[in-house]
Amino acid sequence: MADAYAGRRERLREHCGASGTDAALITRAANVRYLTGCPPCGATLLLTRDRALLALPDDLPPDDTGEHLISPEVTRLEVAAGADTALAAAGAVSGLRVAGLAVEEHDLTVTRHRAVAGLVEGTRLVDVGQAVERLRVVKDEYEIADLRIAAEIADQALGELLESILVGRTERHLAMELERRMIDHGADRAAFPVSVGTGSHSGQQAHQPTDRRVEEGDFLTVVLGARYRGYGVSTARTFVIGAAPAPWQVELHRLVFRAQRAGREALGPGVEQHVPDQAAREILQSAGHTETSPHPVGHGIGLEIREAPRLGPTDMGKLDSRVPVTVGPGVHLPGRGGVRIEDTLVVRPLEEGGPELLTITTKELLAL
Amino acid sequence: MADAYAGRRERLREHCGASGTDAALITRAANVRYLTGCPPCGATLLLTRDRALLALPDDLPPDDTGEHLISPEVTRLEVAAGADTALAAAGAVSGLRVAGLAVEEHDLTVTRHRAVAGLVEGTRLVDVGQAVERLRVVKDEYEIADLRIAAEIADQALGELLESILVGRTERHLAMELERRMIDHGADRAAFPVSVGTGSHSGQQAHQPTDRRVEEGDFLTVVLGARYRGYGVSTARTFVIGAAPAPWQVELHRLVFRAQRAGREALGPGVEQHVPDQAAREILQSAGHTETSPHPVGHGIGLEIREAPRLGPTDMGKLDSRVPVTVGPGVHLPGRGGVRIEDTLVVRPLEEGGPELLTITTKELLAL
Repeated sequence: MADAYAGRRERLREHCGASGTDAALITRAANVRYLTGCPPCGATLLLTRDRALLALPDDLPPDDTGEHLISPEVTRLEVAAGADTALAAAGAVSGLRVAGLAVEEHDLTVTRHRAVAGLVEGTRLVDVGQAVERLRVVKDEYEIADLRIAAEIADQALGELLESILVGRTERHLAMELERRMIDHGADRAAFPVSVGTGSHSGQQAHQPTDRRVEEGDFLTVVLGARYRGYGVSTARTFVIGAAPAPWQVELHRLVFRAQRAGREALGPGVEQHVPDQAAREILQSAGHTETSPHPVGHGIGLEIREAPRLGPTDMGKLDSRVPVTVGPGVHLPGRGGVRIEDTLVVRPLEEGGPELLTITTKELLAL
Repeated sequence: MADAYAGRRERLREHCGASGTDAALITRAANVRYLTGCPPCGATLLLTRDRALLALPDDLPPDDTGEHLISPEVTRLEVAAGADTALAAAGAVSGLRVAGLAVEEHDLTVTRHRAVAGLVEGTRLVDVGQAVERLRVVKDEYEIADLRIAAEIADQALGELLESILVGRTERHLAMELERRMIDHGADRAAFPVSVGTGSHSGQQAHQPTDRRVEEGDFLTVVLGARYRGYGVSTARTFVIGAAPAPWQVELHRLVFRAQRAGREALGPGVEQHVPDQAAREILQSAGHTETSPHPVGHGIGLEIREAPRLGPTDMGKLDSRVPVTVGPGVHLPGRGGVRIEDTLVVRPLEEGGPELLTITTKELLAL
């Protein structure tokens, strides 16, 4: 695993060399983690041709999500809690004769950038852009293994919820319970706040759970994901509460199910990013459903819940193998509710069996 | 309440006028909330001499933590979810003949700042610095009322926990249960992840809960806080598990209790910020306890969990009335555990009764 981190840092060094810088100051938490294993704590990585120096707060908890994950060949520089690690790392540059220092201008504030520039006089600051984010797009098998475990945890928590009594419980309670169950099953934490929407709240994109109670006849939409060793997944399912779903519910669920399947089946290496969105969107539109704003049908997922590549209607790049993405269309009918179905999958070529489904909870319209 | 928001915006306009700008682009989430009521969602406020325009994502949930909190005299500009609201707001500047636009350089990344500059050609960008943060230091009675409720919620959750069986339960479970109880009692959410440390983990500054189970004879430190309408508090208590505490536990608890009381009693309008820290620190040091890094004994608290003023050993400004702060010293003995006791209080003059204690759970060494 230490080798994997070293390999990632080597690829960043190559990128910097090619763009004329001899060191990089990496501040974005997910990028620092990707290159060192260090969990999010405000740490900064200074990477030179022959060194990797990690400036991190001196109160990092030494437990199972903490410091022993940091790649051992990285030199640590402990900084008083509350102090700026980017400045501490920049302070170490002066002794190293660095001509060009790559910085993440999409992460550093103007104020921090100015302070860094003041500390490295004589060194040119150059924007490294989203170079590390681009390295992160295609995952290695360590990363995919963590994503599989994160998906298993989310599936377990969801499966247990489906076996319990739901009528009369509030959205907030169900969301809290799912978060607790994921932690019980070994998650670092929930990858994002669990969304539970019942009745007229069902099917929404990012519904914040309320005190509304689950009632007979409701649609119930659950959007959840676990984070395991930093890697998150996202999944959504919609069920119906009580004996038998109404005809409009059966019809709407079948429609979103078909759209989601079309999106999933469109995934593959070399496929343009907008194709899965288009496949899902055409099915929803042909049934007369158009969302007011064009939310992408999915996005890359990994150390961040939304990362490259985006799968929106205007996204033009091509998908690669070993890229984990979400595919999650939905329809919400104001005042009535709706359906959302989302999976996390890994893009794989057909000869490896096509897209690898990580979130395997049934997508059938269960009556609970 | 709408008047309170309008008054805050007027004070920012005065600040901008005095520093030669005729508009401000406010991007920092807590500052946007302070000036408009808008909960954190990536919104941007554009404030000109006679207008307040709020650019916000079009998928903001319309529930009880959502949009009806936004001050009604603010004009809304809905932006597709995922798009940058700062750029949308900056786009509206061009029609308004703005000569100088104040921006928050401590919040805007270099990349966003450049994009904003590109959209407002002919308008000078000026750093507004921490002007809104400074306005936020002294709270009005609306804010203090919300803080009181947040403190009540945290006290209720803690009180219920103390009545339950603790031996054999894990730190993680206890932390999750406290978060759930705070939501049950009406919190927006926990103000920060609840910390529960037992045995050798007790007394630490920011312990992340583990699967360690509570045992007879343990110290148990709980650090928790609720957030209510955006306003958070923080409190810490340390108890002992089982029949009778050991002599070293009684002694250490008494010491930290005395240090915390000295810190609290030192609070007052006109008092220099380092004085409460000094009062608490002297007591701990006279007993031979010195922490490796000089963590401040406390800090301001409100829309952010750590905000101005900081109460550290080198902080020089003076405290004002109606400033809520935490006072929370602790001692941790590696391998054995320790004690941390923290309150949230509002600085008040003696003629109003002195510091107003918000977090009222007993600080006695209870044996649970």
